[in-house]
Parts: sequence; C-alpha cells; structure tokens
Amino acid sequence: MKKIIVIGAHGTIGKAVAAELGQRHEIIAVGTRSGRYQADISDIAQVRALFAKVGKTDAVVVAAGAIHLAPLAEFTPEHYYIGIHSKLMGQVNVALVAQEMLNDGGSITLTSGVAVDQQIVGGSGACIANAGVEGFARGAAIELARGLRINVVSPSVLEESMDVYGPYFRGFEAVPGRRVALAYSRSVEGAQTGQVYKVW
Amino acid sequence: MKKIIVIGAHGTIGKAVAAELGQRHEIIAVGTRSGRYQADISDIAQVRALFAKVGKTDAVVVAAGAIHLAPLAEFTPEHYYIGIHSKLMGQVNVALVAQEMLNDGGSITLTSGVAVDQQIVGGSGACIANAGVEGFARGAAIELARGLRINVVSPSVLEESMDVYGPYFRGFEAVPGRRVALAYSRSVEGAQTGQVYKVW
Repeated sequence: MKKIIVIGAHGTIGKAVAAELGQRHEIIAVGTRSGRYQADISDIAQVRALFAKVGKTDAVVVAAGAIHLAPLAEFTPEHYYIGIHSKLMGQVNVALVAQEMLNDGGSITLTSGVAVDQQIVGGSGACIANAGVEGFARGAAIELARGLRINVVSPSVLEESMDVYGPYFRGFEAVPGRRVALAYSRSVEGAQTGQVYKVW
Repeated sequence: MKKIIVIGAHGTIGKAVAAELGQRHEIIAVGTRSGRYQADISDIAQVRALFAKVGKTDAVVVAAGAIHLAPLAEFTPEHYYIGIHSKLMGQVNVALVAQEMLNDGGSITLTSGVAVDQQIVGGSGACIANAGVEGFARGAAIELARGLRINVVSPSVLEESMDVYGPYFRGFEAVPGRRVALAYSRSVEGAQTGQVYKVW
C-alpha cells in the first residue's frame, strides 16, 4: 500500500482518481480551499509546507490548476500568466518539492489536457500551460534521482464536465472520470517515466 | 519583396536569417541592446512601440529569448521564470502585437529548440519554454485572422555555438546557421501555418 497525495482531490478528476487509487492505497486529499490539507500550488512555500505536514509519501498526483479561455484576439500577457502561474508552474512547484520529499522509487503524476494536441478556439492559453507541463515532465524524467518517476495524464473533456466545457469541445468524445482515473493508476502503479498518457 | 522584422538579428541565428532573407527582402534588424531598433520582448509595451516605429510590415521573425540551464535538483521556480518571461512570453508578446500590426497575409516565425524533443541534462527549463512556444503556435494558428500565419523553427545546436553549448549537446549533430535559416525562409516565404520546422 502506497501513501499518495492527491492535489485537487475534490475536483472532477481528483474525485475519480481518489476513488480508483483509494481501493488499494492511502489517499491524502488536498484542496485549494477545502479538505483537511490545503495548498495553493502556485506558491512553492505552500507546497513545501504541505509535504512537511503530510510526512513520508510515495506518490503525488496533481489534478489542479486554472487556465484562462478566450479568443486569441482578446488575450493579454496577463491572461496567459494565469495558466502559467497556476496550471504550469503550480505543477512544476509540486514536482520540485516532490523530488526532495518523496520516498525512493516514488512517482509524480501531473495533468495536461487534449487541447494541446487537438486545438480548440479559445485554447491558446491551455496550449501553453499543457505543452509546458508535458515538456517539463519529459525533461525532468531523465534527471530525477532515487528511482523517482514523472508522467503526465492528458484527458479529453470529461463527461462530468460537459455542462461547463461542452461548448469548447464540440465533436470531441467526452470520457468518463473513471476511465481518466485509470491513466493516473497506470502512472502511479506502473513503472514508466517521462510518459504522456492520453485519454481520448 | 516583403518587409521583415528580425528580432535577435545580431545573434547567431538572427544573422543567418537576415543573410538568407535579406537576399530577397527588406530586413528590419532588432536587438535587445544593439542595432537601430531595440526592444526587450519580455515587455509587451516595448514590442508595441517597436511595431509602431517600424510601421507596416509583412513578417516578423523572433530568434531571441533567454533560458536558464541547470541540473533539475538545483532549479527554483525563479529559474524557470527566466525562460518563461523571456523565451516563452517574450515570443508570445511578439505574436500578440503582430496579430494586430502585420499586413494581411503576414507571418510570425518563432524559435524553440531541439532539447524539448531530445532532452538534455540541465534542460528542464528549456523544455518548458520551448514546449510552451510550440504549443502556443499550434493553438494560435487556428485563430489568427486576415490570413496571418504562425510557425516555429526548432533548431539543433548550431555549429557556430558549439564553443558555448557543446558540453550540453554531446552526440548531437550540430547544424550550420545557413541550414537553420532555410527553415525560417520556409516559414516566411511558404504558406503553411501551425508547423514546427525541425532542423536536426
């Protein structure tokens, strides 16, 4: 049994991941403003405090991070920095702390999204954040020490989120959260590193 | 004959691009601190001022942007933000201004680098910046109006830069600047959009 920190545990993906991995492992659920453990991952000091409080851990899963959606013609640098600070560097912050704090052989699993490969109108900020996360994981994988691994899950739009995101993803096959959760399981319970698991 | 802004015109790539495209087009050479026109592209206000001064333009090429190279274990968020502010958002700033200021049918050509596909030790910051640039260009390509196009050139280490970067790129085939410059010509003088031209 592994001890697994799930950041964003109360979101649509996080709940599905906790349900899947919670059958076999101890889940430490972390929210931004909810749950027993709280952390704003865009602030690395809060990530450090979280890992210090939780103690020895085998894996961390991040299913959190905001991005701004808007037509390209309306985007400003500040809009791009929303996704850069939160979804991109928030997840990088977790990886930086995890490389020090996880047990030997531990794993880091981050989240990108389909829009970086199948571009959508309004999604240029998502492209930057998601591509950045995937690029980082591929780059970090070859340098992690102590048998640590890092992977990314790139889900399509979730069935459970279609009421909110449906208009951006017309023609996309929505995927159920339980199917997305399997990719996180593959990352945490498998042995690969530097992979992007696409769930489309 | 096109009027082409080359940002980073005094760098190794920029000089080669200016030599190639200058045979057939008017080159407006821009440096950070040198040349007739100067702009720090990490500040969108300076990019706006540049395009206002230069006036009607058909294409912009960016071969500029700093990144931090260091072992993953020594990276801090601030180190990643060096590449994010400069190589990633600097180039995004140019694209945002160019989408308003370029003539109809104009083109934007940005620069990433081989390390995002062939990872190197010390290159996790390059991975973020380069992947972000490529992701952005693919996302922006489907939304650009007025027949505008956007592409990215991903060069291997340049022969002319081996004295500085050689130790990071052992076993890589270095490419001459004149060969890299052809990819920029393909972007500016061709008709594709949303492409990443790999020069390896």
